Amino acid sequence: MAKFPGVSMSVTRRLSRYYRCLGELKKKGIERISSREFAEIIGFSASQIRQDLNCFGGFGQQGYGYNVSALQYEIGRILGVEKKLPAILIGVGNMGLALINHVGFEQLGFKLTGVFDSSPNLIGRTVKQFTVRDTAELRPFCKQNNPAIAILCVPESAVHELVDNLSDWGIKGFWNFTPYNIGVAFKDKNIMVENVHISDSLMTLAYLVNESL
Amino acid sequence: MAKFPGVSMSVTRRLSRYYRCLGELKKKGIERISSREFAEIIGFSASQIRQDLNCFGGFGQQGYGYNVSALQYEIGRILGVEKKLPAILIGVGNMGLALINHVGFEQLGFKLTGVFDSSPNLIGRTVKQFTVRDTAELRPFCKQNNPAIAILCVPESAVHELVDNLSDWGIKGFWNFTPYNIGVAFKDKNIMVENVHISDSLMTLAYLVNESL
Repeated sequence: MAKFPGVSMSVTRRLSRYYRCLGELKKKGIERISSREFAEIIGFSASQIRQDLNCFGGFGQQGYGYNVSALQYEIGRILGVEKKLPAILIGVGNMGLALINHVGFEQLGFKLTGVFDSSPNLIGRTVKQFTVRDTAELRPFCKQNNPAIAILCVPESAVHELVDNLSDWGIKGFWNFTPYNIGVAFKDKNIMVENVHISDSLMTLAYLVNESL
Repeated sequence: MAKFPGVSMSVTRRLSRYYRCLGELKKKGIERISSREFAEIIGFSASQIRQDLNCFGGFGQQGYGYNVSALQYEIGRILGVEKKLPAILIGVGNMGLALINHVGFEQLGFKLTGVFDSSPNLIGRTVKQFTVRDTAELRPFCKQNNPAIAILCVPESAVHELVDNLSDWGIKGFWNFTPYNIGVAFKDKNIMVENVHISDSLMTLAYLVNESL
């Protein structure tokens, strides 16, 4: 059930960015910030920020600005950071390893509960605190542990079947690092998808640099 | 010099996405597509697509739609895909390796010309067709080869100094995979930055899944 119906994807994406930036300010020991200063750091307009936060009842105080910790806490609550959604990661190649080692799952509202691969060379090996499991165990694992999110770092050819199976086995969201675009069809089944497509931002950079030369 | 002044970042980002989706359609053997069908696949409205393409003179034909190959070619030209910007990658950990092995640099408008790390365990090793060079060689390498783009996959603590140096040595754009947010300050120096922040999309997914439960 949507707690904030009608909040657009763009607002949701900006909230994630607010949350991260506020965390960085907190690390630097900054306790309060005006919407104008916040806007400068984050690269959106102050009125955009106010408008976004108003979707959720508004925060901040005229003449004071925002309390950094309090605002981050509230945005974290909206994003569901405290829920610690159970997640599994499939495909322990370089991308999978980079994510396991460098993404702060707990801080982002997740608990990584299992790591899978189909390669005999990897099954049984230890990565961080995880023993790599055989993808053949996915079905019983999902039944027993009910992971909500699957992080896909597998070859493109394996995605289609995997996504079909995992959505049957109760996965509610896919964080997809493969080039395969998981279609909107899943949205009908109430399954959420974030197709990452890292390369899009590289092409954006190419354009910007070419324009600037 | 901007060839298309006034084109917003949002349009630029959508162009990258159009380019990728058109490539996928081409792979599937689809030769033409209506703006309505294209909109359904890509998840923007048909009028958004028409409006974006009109920034560049418009493509497509009333009653015919878009020729997939021709449109991809034209968007590729706008994005500068044929320019093959020389790029270097610094930090050959898991993320660096994932990018070297899985990003189709050539197709995206880049030519990877050098790969660097500071770890004695990695320097001299071969990754794909690259021999990993010592980051101590960055300065002479930049002087001799004039790379335009630096891809940063180094630890957060190393970024600040690296970015300062590389921008002095002629780098025009950073594709930044570190958690360190390279500031807008560089924009004044006509240096372009794409801070990737993979985790933002994971938080977005957390929100969407929490809302859907």
